[in-house]
Amino acid sequence: MRELSVKTDSKIVLLVLDGLGGLPLHPSGQTELEAADSPNLDSLAARSDLGLSRPVAAGVSPGSGPGHLALFGYNPLRHVVGPGVLSALGVGFDLGENDLAARLNFATLDESGKISDRRAGRIPSEKGAELVEMLNENIDLDDVITFVRHEKEYRAVAIFRGEGLYDALADSDPQRVGLGPLPVKPTEDAPEAQRSAALANAFVEQANEILKDQHPANTVLMRGFGMHPALPSFEEIYELDPAAIASYPMYKGLARLAGMELLKEGEGIAGEFETLRKNWDRHDFFFLHVKPTDAAGEDGDFERKAGVIEEVDAEIPGLLDLGPDALAITGDHATPAKLKSHSWHGVPFLLNSPYALPTAESFGERACAGGSLGELSAEEIMGLLMGHALKLNRYGA
Amino acid sequence: MRELSVKTDSKIVLLVLDGLGGLPLHPSGQTELEAADSPNLDSLAARSDLGLSRPVAAGVSPGSGPGHLALFGYNPLRHVVGPGVLSALGVGFDLGENDLAARLNFATLDESGKISDRRAGRIPSEKGAELVEMLNENIDLDDVITFVRHEKEYRAVAIFRGEGLYDALADSDPQRVGLGPLPVKPTEDAPEAQRSAALANAFVEQANEILKDQHPANTVLMRGFGMHPALPSFEEIYELDPAAIASYPMYKGLARLAGMELLKEGEGIAGEFETLRKNWDRHDFFFLHVKPTDAAGEDGDFERKAGVIEEVDAEIPGLLDLGPDALAITGDHATPAKLKSHSWHGVPFLLNSPYALPTAESFGERACAGGSLGELSAEEIMGLLMGHALKLNRYGA
Repeated sequence: MRELSVKTDSKIVLLVLDGLGGLPLHPSGQTELEAADSPNLDSLAARSDLGLSRPVAAGVSPGSGPGHLALFGYNPLRHVVGPGVLSALGVGFDLGENDLAARLNFATLDESGKISDRRAGRIPSEKGAELVEMLNENIDLDDVITFVRHEKEYRAVAIFRGEGLYDALADSDPQRVGLGPLPVKPTEDAPEAQRSAALANAFVEQANEILKDQHPANTVLMRGFGMHPALPSFEEIYELDPAAIASYPMYKGLARLAGMELLKEGEGIAGEFETLRKNWDRHDFFFLHVKPTDAAGEDGDFERKAGVIEEVDAEIPGLLDLGPDALAITGDHATPAKLKSHSWHGVPFLLNSPYALPTAESFGERACAGGSLGELSAEEIMGLLMGHALKLNRYGA
Repeated sequence: MRELSVKTDSKIVLLVLDGLGGLPLHPSGQTELEAADSPNLDSLAARSDLGLSRPVAAGVSPGSGPGHLALFGYNPLRHVVGPGVLSALGVGFDLGENDLAARLNFATLDESGKISDRRAGRIPSEKGAELVEMLNENIDLDDVITFVRHEKEYRAVAIFRGEGLYDALADSDPQRVGLGPLPVKPTEDAPEAQRSAALANAFVEQANEILKDQHPANTVLMRGFGMHPALPSFEEIYELDPAAIASYPMYKGLARLAGMELLKEGEGIAGEFETLRKNWDRHDFFFLHVKPTDAAGEDGDFERKAGVIEEVDAEIPGLLDLGPDALAITGDHATPAKLKSHSWHGVPFLLNSPYALPTAESFGERACAGGSLGELSAEEIMGLLMGHALKLNRYGA
């Protein structure tokens, strides 16, 4: 890709409806996308390439991290993003390439030193934020700067900034109550991992002192250590000047991993499309992320998920008026309302350009299964977009 | 898979109709599966994911070894199983990881030392067994224990057990009559291969002495040297407690390579399904192997192959009554009656679970080609089954 990519005036839009893929509630029924009243998407499908995108591997349900890395063209098995990194990105923390991040749970330690509640009685977010502030101000470790940021309720994230850190570390969370917290141990025999483990343990020790009177939130458990994956940027790989429109911090963070500029998004789905219009002349690649499809799927709300798709459908004419040269509409994974969770199923994929080979009259899982792209790997999508936008030189003479 | 697999109560069935894939006898005709009167399979297909499974590589017709390794999720190009190993497993020999196995043919040597019959006049199985016993009792090689086991008629298998053996060896069978048997030669410049070649040649020399009065079976030809591939077991990879129901020793042997427990099968196809029912509560994964589809295909008997499919069809309601959480029905390769041999064609694949996306009203090659799984690699089947049985954790946060 690096060798073939050329800078042109053409513009690419990657519209991601999070968790778009669905399932019929009954074997003879329709999926959320098939059931949605979406005349604009259907009419677009009739002028587009269709296929089913596989995010990671057969049978494997991806998290948002690997799901988006694959959409952005990075191999999600090679580029592993630790949960701590996603949390740090998710709260909008400006994670550096040498920073080590870990998820924190506030938890309850009983008199005998055993964990009696791994979530500290699910303390409210206000309390969580207050305790995070105490940790952030008072933790003081040698040779590293420590940041603590609040996520929600009992969840937070710690970031260590310094030289020679390494994320080959096991969790301190024993995963069960009635056990003592585990010391953080290196999972590889590397001095950087030894040092990082010592820092993490010193962090917990200081946190215990700071929190000792804060029952039930009198300790923290650390898990999901990770470091910023040093991904080559979209500019390096594709010669693109990419921008991202996303309302949730984690997706903004993922976009930043690929070197995208974050655009200030408007309110709701309509607001996101409005942001796209306002910034149309300033970039040649736009990633637009719509979250509520996934949220509805996770809630098992088939109708609401279809409704979100209809809401997006209403924005399609305005999007097409901008004249994108290549437009992909897909999801990072399936979130069928039937499963109430991310799933391994193929994700509907639509690619519109003047160079498409249409095969169906509507946008839906089954239309995509029979599409001209067949089953494709999500990692291939960026290549297809670059090709359809005429941004790739011929390979070989 | 190892990292994502979780132990649950759900149950998986992998039903393999050997050589299931077929072809129309005439371009406008139906395949064996399409022509079969199989209402239960058709009705199941209407509630299932469909696809065409590719066993090894485009255009490549696999043997039973690679065909099944792929179905079991092992890369058949990386894990090469020598024919000698399949024969040893096929006769139920408990092959160890350091054992070297080779296929034997009883053959006829004329007075001038040339092979006059590569199959020793196809001696009956009783005679073959008697000669095998003579070899097994009287062969005596330095530093290795030698086992000889009978397969059928003129075919047998020799196993050398000892340290430092290696299967990089060429056959002694010259593949044509009128030529002398070849000395076994190493195909790699390794001391273990030199030593193993010397052992094989000493074996033939002793066998010639033992068999000298047994015309027409007065020599043995050795071929297909192989060693046990050290495959990670289903328990290691998938946390499954797998069982196999197969009537032919080779398939039992292949199942054992994956760590499956062999269940004593009943008589014929109905007997195999009866074994499944009897053992339903004892395992969470069942491999059920049906051989006669392949045998009919090899015989070029289109009608009989369709008939075997109908016989299996009659067992489907009973199978569904057991309530498998994920059920795959496929073949290890195609054996079209039109070709009278294994072939490279896509193999019909059906996966039934509550989380399927049905696309057709019948089970057949063309319904599968348009299915929601498209063309899939046979190696992906285990991942799909694990996903549909909800036995895989999410990948990444």
